[in-house]
Amino acid sequence: MKAVRLFEFDKPPRLVEVPEPKLIGPLDVIVRIAGAGVCRTDLHLVEGVFPAVRDKLPFTLGHENAGWIEEVGSGVPDMAKGDPVILHPQPSCGFCRNCRVGNDMHCTGPSFFPGFDGTDGGYTELLRTNARAVIKLAPGTDPASLAPFADAGITAYHAVKKILPTLMPGTSVVVLGVGGLGHFGVQILKAMSSARVIALDMNAERLDFARRLGADEAFMSAPDGVQAVRKATDGRGADVVLDFVGERGTPDTAIKMLRRGGSYSQIGYGGTLTIPTVELLLGEYTILGNIVGSYNDLAELMELNHQGKVHITAQQFPLEDAADVLHELDAGRIEGRAVLLPPGVRQGSAQPVAAGAAAR
Amino acid sequence: MKAVRLFEFDKPPRLVEVPEPKLIGPLDVIVRIAGAGVCRTDLHLVEGVFPAVRDKLPFTLGHENAGWIEEVGSGVPDMAKGDPVILHPQPSCGFCRNCRVGNDMHCTGPSFFPGFDGTDGGYTELLRTNARAVIKLAPGTDPASLAPFADAGITAYHAVKKILPTLMPGTSVVVLGVGGLGHFGVQILKAMSSARVIALDMNAERLDFARRLGADEAFMSAPDGVQAVRKATDGRGADVVLDFVGERGTPDTAIKMLRRGGSYSQIGYGGTLTIPTVELLLGEYTILGNIVGSYNDLAELMELNHQGKVHITAQQFPLEDAADVLHELDAGRIEGRAVLLPPGVRQGSAQPVAAGAAAR
Amino acid sequence: MKAVRLFEFDKPPRLVEVPEPKLIGPLDVIVRIAGAGVCRTDLHLVEGVFPAVRDKLPFTLGHENAGWIEEVGSGVPDMAKGDPVILHPQPSCGFCRNCRVGNDMHCTGPSFFPGFDGTDGGYTELLRTNARAVIKLAPGTDPASLAPFADAGITAYHAVKKILPTLMPGTSVVVLGVGGLGHFGVQILKAMSSARVIALDMNAERLDFARRLGADEAFMSAPDGVQAVRKATDGRGADVVLDFVGERGTPDTAIKMLRRGGSYSQIGYGGTLTIPTVELLLGEYTILGNIVGSYNDLAELMELNHQGKVHITAQQFPLEDAADVLHELDAGRIEGRAVLLPPGVRQGSAQPVAAGAAAR
Amino acid sequence: MKAVRLFEFDKPPRLVEVPEPKLIGPLDVIVRIAGAGVCRTDLHLVEGVFPAVRDKLPFTLGHENAGWIEEVGSGVPDMAKGDPVILHPQPSCGFCRNCRVGNDMHCTGPSFFPGFDGTDGGYTELLRTNARAVIKLAPGTDPASLAPFADAGITAYHAVKKILPTLMPGTSVVVLGVGGLGHFGVQILKAMSSARVIALDMNAERLDFARRLGADEAFMSAPDGVQAVRKATDGRGADVVLDFVGERGTPDTAIKMLRRGGSYSQIGYGGTLTIPTVELLLGEYTILGNIVGSYNDLAELMELNHQGKVHITAQQFPLEDAADVLHELDAGRIEGRAVLLPPGVRQGSAQPVAAGAAAR
Repeated sequence: MKAVRLFEFDKPPRLVEVPEPKLIGPLDVIVRIAGAGVCRTDLHLVEGVFPAVRDKLPFTLGHENAGWIEEVGSGVPDMAKGDPVILHPQPSCGFCRNCRVGNDMHCTGPSFFPGFDGTDGGYTELLRTNARAVIKLAPGTDPASLAPFADAGITAYHAVKKILPTLMPGTSVVVLGVGGLGHFGVQILKAMSSARVIALDMNAERLDFARRLGADEAFMSAPDGVQAVRKATDGRGADVVLDFVGERGTPDTAIKMLRRGGSYSQIGYGGTLTIPTVELLLGEYTILGNIVGSYNDLAELMELNHQGKVHITAQQFPLEDAADVLHELDAGRIEGRAVLLPPGVRQGSAQPVAAGAAAR
Repeated sequence: MKAVRLFEFDKPPRLVEVPEPKLIGPLDVIVRIAGAGVCRTDLHLVEGVFPAVRDKLPFTLGHENAGWIEEVGSGVPDMAKGDPVILHPQPSCGFCRNCRVGNDMHCTGPSFFPGFDGTDGGYTELLRTNARAVIKLAPGTDPASLAPFADAGITAYHAVKKILPTLMPGTSVVVLGVGGLGHFGVQILKAMSSARVIALDMNAERLDFARRLGADEAFMSAPDGVQAVRKATDGRGADVVLDFVGERGTPDTAIKMLRRGGSYSQIGYGGTLTIPTVELLLGEYTILGNIVGSYNDLAELMELNHQGKVHITAQQFPLEDAADVLHELDAGRIEGRAVLLPPGVRQGSAQPVAAGAAAR
Repeated sequence: MKAVRLFEFDKPPRLVEVPEPKLIGPLDVIVRIAGAGVCRTDLHLVEGVFPAVRDKLPFTLGHENAGWIEEVGSGVPDMAKGDPVILHPQPSCGFCRNCRVGNDMHCTGPSFFPGFDGTDGGYTELLRTNARAVIKLAPGTDPASLAPFADAGITAYHAVKKILPTLMPGTSVVVLGVGGLGHFGVQILKAMSSARVIALDMNAERLDFARRLGADEAFMSAPDGVQAVRKATDGRGADVVLDFVGERGTPDTAIKMLRRGGSYSQIGYGGTLTIPTVELLLGEYTILGNIVGSYNDLAELMELNHQGKVHITAQQFPLEDAADVLHELDAGRIEGRAVLLPPGVRQGSAQPVAAGAAAR
Repeated sequence: MKAVRLFEFDKPPRLVEVPEPKLIGPLDVIVRIAGAGVCRTDLHLVEGVFPAVRDKLPFTLGHENAGWIEEVGSGVPDMAKGDPVILHPQPSCGFCRNCRVGNDMHCTGPSFFPGFDGTDGGYTELLRTNARAVIKLAPGTDPASLAPFADAGITAYHAVKKILPTLMPGTSVVVLGVGGLGHFGVQILKAMSSARVIALDMNAERLDFARRLGADEAFMSAPDGVQAVRKATDGRGADVVLDFVGERGTPDTAIKMLRRGGSYSQIGYGGTLTIPTVELLLGEYTILGNIVGSYNDLAELMELNHQGKVHITAQQFPLEDAADVLHELDAGRIEGRAVLLPPGVRQGSAQPVAAGAAAR
């Protein structure tokens, strides 16, 4: 079968012929890929930002996957060939304390992360994962366009869910960056809470996009996003800032937008957070890191999508264009999330939120 | 091998010869029983209180089990023959929403409850369970005396953990009934919180027992336990009542012990709770049912035992005496929890909390 | 000034002339009443359901009040004559533990409950309360039509907020009774969560009303509401039942609608809840009483109203018709909540949710 | 009366004669000081670290105060001259949302902070505060030695209480710095939870001190505290680090001690926290600032003290020695917390935890 594999750092991944994966353990599942999302993390993998995978080259990229059940191991309950599915990115063990308590993204047992940690991912036709990673979709669902929920979507959902207990009527939440993740953030906040959503972006078009998605207000993040937020909150500052950028100074700026006792939640990454402890003390801030989300998070997000409350903005490309798509992503020319379709999967239409919507 | 099986309602279970269990699924585990606790629920099973198991007779009793790994299925990680273990009473599926969120006792997948639901339990030599039910004990641990943690202990722990967020310095918790479950309750409360523990029992010896276990105060529940609690709390009432009796009028009495906004947590069962809605409203009470607990609950409780903070009071008997032991339990003549030891397991000494301590 | 006072049980309250209230303590506030809601509890007061107030007769009824600041004590910050306000029904002390932690409805300091506990309420022109009970409304707001938020609204809000942490996408909540309180419940659930709302009522018109308010589904509660809920939840039962009726058997019926681990929240009152402890255990249910709500609850609810997410259905009557209005309420002929307007307050139009909408 | 006042930055405060304070508002309270704790923040005030108070010089220092009621305003309930009391450091308004929800340290109404924000503090004989700041002590209590609970104690308590929901049997908590605040931290953790407490300090004597206070383990923070913690936690890292130092590199080091999903709670201050967002993401850490605590926090802490579970280590000095004591504190020569006693208050013995115990 065809697969797009990373052979060495700083060289584009290449489409090659590889053998099909086989079931190994009793909980293994082989999935026929319908679509695989293209993520900025893929660029970072190519750039060698994660040196730990050097010894595992080459491997197939793609950690944001959806498709259909192809084959299941002897211990897998309740799945049949052809069932449409979306995949939690990190197959977990189900036995460790974290798995048992709903933090399966912190699984300490034998788990792996296809397309990210050196095991083969979804830029191909067939993928091996395990039964604990599989979320069944409603019969008849077209999985291709849903793939970006599996990483971009779940991460935004996870971050929102963590701050949900603090969101009451009258609470203000800033969404920094209305791109691939942030556009999920706005929708999820509006679907799950009565909080006021204030969107900030450097791009005026994205402010319109944010408003169409339900943001109560939207401001340019430059020249003075802090001032804009202060003004919109009667001088007090926001209760929460969700930072979907996480670089180019946003972490430090974001904290200046908070009221005393407020929370800064970091989702985007790349930059550095620096805060004097006396400020952390005087503001009594809470700072929250976020990584992916749990299986239940993704299941709940798919329910929101099923209810029509959270939509995806995505463009589809054939798998063989992977290197080009990565190049376009790097150049900022991808509108919405890009999804790669393997040979034989019919290119359909995504579920557009709004024409011309841009996303990271 | 030998097994004590229930053949018909209202007849004592009998020791008979049965074939050894075999592994079926890849996550199955066979455990060599070291000890099986004898529970009042076993009496109820004999009495036919649970008619749903009639069609499954005969089956082997025993849902409170500890022992050593004997054999494991192909998908079971990290366990070897001879490892000492204690068993969560309900092997769960690991895939359903409840399992994933830490409520495995509400597993909605294919799960079972050996010794309770008609599948074979631990009044025997070898038991089939699954890998998700197994908690490994420290190497060298003698599992026999620990069996009562698997049901009596976990249930008390689960109930305490649910009310833990409300327990602050100055909070008063009433423990109703200092028997097999209640004696765990007192110890767990003192180990995990700074709450004031007020024990009530109908038996004066048990009040001494409660004080030795750490209760701050202990009163006779008759003639007027409500008055005793009101007096001990400056007239306001207790913040929480943990009812380890649940019959003979305790539910209704217990609620009269609460302050406004207080919580009644029911663990013992048999009686009926009756409350006018106007009282529920004026008191704004919270009423909590409890069933067993999660795997993590049991793991945490074993950690408390390992730290020396929660002890068990138990007596050991040979398996062939099962019917006699049930009869003695029914007659109220068992001190502490009774544990049955299969042939070949050496009868050792339990870990007494205090000489002469009585427990349900 | 004019006031409608209760002189003896089982006799209609009478409109009489009374002296105006005076400021006593430094935190006292005198409010000029714009409107006072008529509540089923007023009927109960007349019927002598609360014998403790016998010694305090006569007193002025009315515990659901809104109006304008008239005069404030020397220690009251930030309020001026003419400010439109809505009043928390129970002026609290601000010093006790409950007040400090956000449970001011359980104030254990010197507090009172005008119109309910024998102190004078709002069926009149001027009312004495204290500064801790006053919520300022946006300048220019007409307080008259908002009065029912002060008791019916806050109670529904409080009950929803308590179960909010359990409401995730995919969660089902049953609203039993779509009357004066329940119609708030449906709107608040939809505004604050992504839960699926299933409304039940004995009246087919109210099912339409519920759907217009946002209920996802609506069923007749007879002949078999339990079966309707089971069917709508794939046989599992609802995650939560909010019981706005609380009498005529609904408490026991409601619990049969729950899934294992579900919550029953009681708001309406009058009947009795009866549950065998073995069922409470097997279902591991949580049962929640509710009384009014906190000041912050009411402030948050007014924010939802301000955002246009929660509307009120009310009819206005002149104060002198109080006895007649109570009679009509008893006869089930009041559509929506009735509000009494004292002399001099212009009768305006309420904010109708939908024409012909019925409410308890 | 005598008072120790700060006249200009970088000059020692001086003992001078000042007029006695008078009641102003109806909730004001005048307290006769029994003892006032000396805090490192006093040094920072002298050093001009808080430039905002420059315009308010001179003022009386002392924000950690205990004494007896002297006089109360007309609206103050339930206090009489001579009642022994300890004072929450920040008199709050009682009306704002934060006050009503238990976050009175974030009061947004008219509040002040005697001895810190330019209003007169407790290095004197009589202090004006308000009724919301007063915690009554058991009759006959000697308030002098208890003063350090009012700031050092409450801050440690507040930080522990925030992480309490994450502390289960098996959880590891690192206490960084066993000085004035940290020695409270160890005791409070042991009193309120079953967590394993690992103390780190640069001073070997303090490790012994920590063990006597109940720490399960204690290690030198140099040369490699991170390695010591990793080793003590089977390589996984601690669940929580409470950083009572907050300077000289501890914030960055502390985060390296955490397991994935762990929490860093900052109490000490002076340094800067710097963390790449990719590490915050991969570790999914929670970072918590802390400032003082709520009134209820202090009340609960005094209850722990009353139960004999949390002791204080303090030395008493006459008020006129204030400048010398500050100098000694700066030189690291104060054992335990120093408390200043105004003229006429008899110098008694503190409640020593252990002979020779050292504290910041």
